[in-house]
Amino acid sequence: MKHAKPLPTYLVQRYQGWKATTYASNESWYRHLGTEGQHPRAMIISCCDSRVHVTSIFGADQGEFFIHRNIANLVPPYQPDGNQHGTSAAVEYAVTALKVAHVVVLGHSQCGGVQGCIDMCEGNAPALESKESFVGRWMDVLRPSYEEVSDIENPAEKARSFEKQAVLVSLENLMTFPFVKERVDSGELSLHGLWHNIAEGGLESFNPASGNFAPL
Amino acid sequence: MKHAKPLPTYLVQRYQGWKATTYASNESWYRHLGTEGQHPRAMIISCCDSRVHVTSIFGADQGEFFIHRNIANLVPPYQPDGNQHGTSAAVEYAVTALKVAHVVVLGHSQCGGVQGCIDMCEGNAPALESKESFVGRWMDVLRPSYEEVSDIENPAEKARSFEKQAVLVSLENLMTFPFVKERVDSGELSLHGLWHNIAEGGLESFNPASGNFAPL
Amino acid sequence: MKHAKPLPTYLVQRYQGWKATTYASNESWYRHLGTEGQHPRAMIISCCDSRVHVTSIFGADQGEFFIHRNIANLVPPYQPDGNQHGTSAAVEYAVTALKVAHVVVLGHSQCGGVQGCIDMCEGNAPALESKESFVGRWMDVLRPSYEEVSDIENPAEKARSFEKQAVLVSLENLMTFPFVKERVDSGELSLHGLWHNIAEGGLESFNPASGNFAPL
Amino acid sequence: MKHAKPLPTYLVQRYQGWKATTYASNESWYRHLGTEGQHPRAMIISCCDSRVHVTSIFGADQGEFFIHRNIANLVPPYQPDGNQHGTSAAVEYAVTALKVAHVVVLGHSQCGGVQGCIDMCEGNAPALESKESFVGRWMDVLRPSYEEVSDIENPAEKARSFEKQAVLVSLENLMTFPFVKERVDSGELSLHGLWHNIAEGGLESFNPASGNFAPL
Repeated sequence: MKHAKPLPTYLVQRYQGWKATTYASNESWYRHLGTEGQHPRAMIISCCDSRVHVTSIFGADQGEFFIHRNIANLVPPYQPDGNQHGTSAAVEYAVTALKVAHVVVLGHSQCGGVQGCIDMCEGNAPALESKESFVGRWMDVLRPSYEEVSDIENPAEKARSFEKQAVLVSLENLMTFPFVKERVDSGELSLHGLWHNIAEGGLESFNPASGNFAPL
Repeated sequence: MKHAKPLPTYLVQRYQGWKATTYASNESWYRHLGTEGQHPRAMIISCCDSRVHVTSIFGADQGEFFIHRNIANLVPPYQPDGNQHGTSAAVEYAVTALKVAHVVVLGHSQCGGVQGCIDMCEGNAPALESKESFVGRWMDVLRPSYEEVSDIENPAEKARSFEKQAVLVSLENLMTFPFVKERVDSGELSLHGLWHNIAEGGLESFNPASGNFAPL
Repeated sequence: MKHAKPLPTYLVQRYQGWKATTYASNESWYRHLGTEGQHPRAMIISCCDSRVHVTSIFGADQGEFFIHRNIANLVPPYQPDGNQHGTSAAVEYAVTALKVAHVVVLGHSQCGGVQGCIDMCEGNAPALESKESFVGRWMDVLRPSYEEVSDIENPAEKARSFEKQAVLVSLENLMTFPFVKERVDSGELSLHGLWHNIAEGGLESFNPASGNFAPL
Repeated sequence: MKHAKPLPTYLVQRYQGWKATTYASNESWYRHLGTEGQHPRAMIISCCDSRVHVTSIFGADQGEFFIHRNIANLVPPYQPDGNQHGTSAAVEYAVTALKVAHVVVLGHSQCGGVQGCIDMCEGNAPALESKESFVGRWMDVLRPSYEEVSDIENPAEKARSFEKQAVLVSLENLMTFPFVKERVDSGELSLHGLWHNIAEGGLESFNPASGNFAPL
């Protein structure tokens, strides 16, 4: 691997600062995590978006949350075809090996992946339609739900609604995994849907009784 | 989606605490991120492991790093077959849409995914061999490299070596993506390999000149 | 004291969040508690176990319950020998200085201390027999009651039964304190025995009429 | 045990409300705690005082903190004499069985136990001098440190100072336990001293560099 380069200096400096402060004051806990393994309480499925830090929002310590991040916090349906499914592998590991008690799907505002899906559905993103577009094919997971929001005229409102729809699609797809459904039915596992408004610092939780997201 | 449940109270409380402090004192930046979009400097590919918080290690602000997290921080090879490839979608979005300047692959010690791959390669994990095992099939990405470490007798040393190998495999696979190779060749993008020792708080960087990882 | 370290950052953040929300919205009550002193309605004797939060189960406000927590929620017998007896001091302060109206002993499932006592009684825990074992010596308080459960063959059932026995032993020992007995006899103080099932969220109350614990 | 009484109705009602709400929305986590056991990150040694809820201040979930509460958050010195030492048993269990990474001693303002000790030291509390006074004998742990604050004339200032002294005495006594010292020296365990101002909602942390408590 001759292409790799040294880490930029400012990141080396920040790391060394972390080592001298956060690590130093918490060394015993890091050692504990190294020797005793992880026992996270929950899995969080969040977006790769640089503006969404779930560990900050929930004041999380190292070891609390098993976090999978992909484009648009999507979970594809159960499809055990022998091919590589990174999200399904993460869910399987969290639920069957780590036995987490919660899986939280965290959507967010201004999601580029969701907007790309809207653009595809409205015929405005031919490049995403290509077989070679990984983003396009990934957003196909969400595409069938477009009809739920197609009538909304205001573009910002439509995007927001589709972002929340993405959370519900992931929750529904999670239930297609036998090992998820079994544990949800037995009360060992609970699923939660959240949507985060970046600009407002808002957090809305899906309420299955009302069928809506409501601010916390 | 009738299966979702309300968020546990203690997480609601912690969120409200964040809103009143971290958000309140950085509101202008969050609003900026909401209206101006994200402009991250780098993509980080890290593990889902609850013990590895790259945002903590690098003192990251919201908006700095586009972060993809999957089991064992793996990047599969370029395979534009029209199927869903979440990791490839994340790489494509970061490199071609966000035009990040760096892609950092961050491996770590005590990685359960890498250990599972060793167990498979040594014939000790029949369950992972099943077509239905998402974790097993996902770790197939790393499997061909087992020969690089098969001679190491000490199990802890072998695991550590294979964890670093996983970083190199991902970096090599990244170079099979045409849009990555093109930008690396032109100097627009640089790749970096890191390995984090959880217990020690250590961080080692891959040095292409020596072919080894060295502490920062 | 040169060995102390700064508090981990995530706890500082969580505290600041609490200050800005829970404290801010209840400031008048906290100020009242600070200037007027505490007037708790009850003393709770509970286990140190991290899974048992009596304040959560009873929706407790600051100021409601004077809470002593030790291994296995035990009260040793009255023994005014001039040595240090932390539990007896807590009982004395609650009953004679604060004049609480209730003392509640709260046992719970999966109690490590009670299990350790069973292991000792069955000859399976030589380390706990040592004079140097504080846990072993502390569990001696419960030891004489082992005969009450020794005939139970199912280990889980035996543990559960002994956990409830621990509550009764503590209640009986409470009555050996003259200042407790006097107030119970006069009707100024009442004693209560509870057992909490962590996994089920159950709560059982001791009924002196039947001599059994019954679900609430 | 014929003296126990049924639980007051309002507590039964509160419990049933908790079961239907907090437990119901977090059932999977409680089940996990019941079957997988506890893995707390820290032990907290706090006062029984009804006004100090460490789980509230730190937004703690069930399972996070192993909590011992006694009068004035005291740890007596290591004394393996075969007698019953509840605090020492709690420390032993947390450090050697649960392998917690942190022990936090949390003192607080308006502490009745500390004030009682001042009264004893100033000759104003003959009842506490009696061999039969469990509170008096318990506060003997702190008594030798009175000279550190005896010169302070303002009573409130003296009390506050002695409350902080109680935290330091406990930290020093913790280091007399061989299993604590060994782990502190090796970096597996870290000790922390805090003092909480009830009325102000303040939290001060002991800084070993300056030798003082400073607000967080």
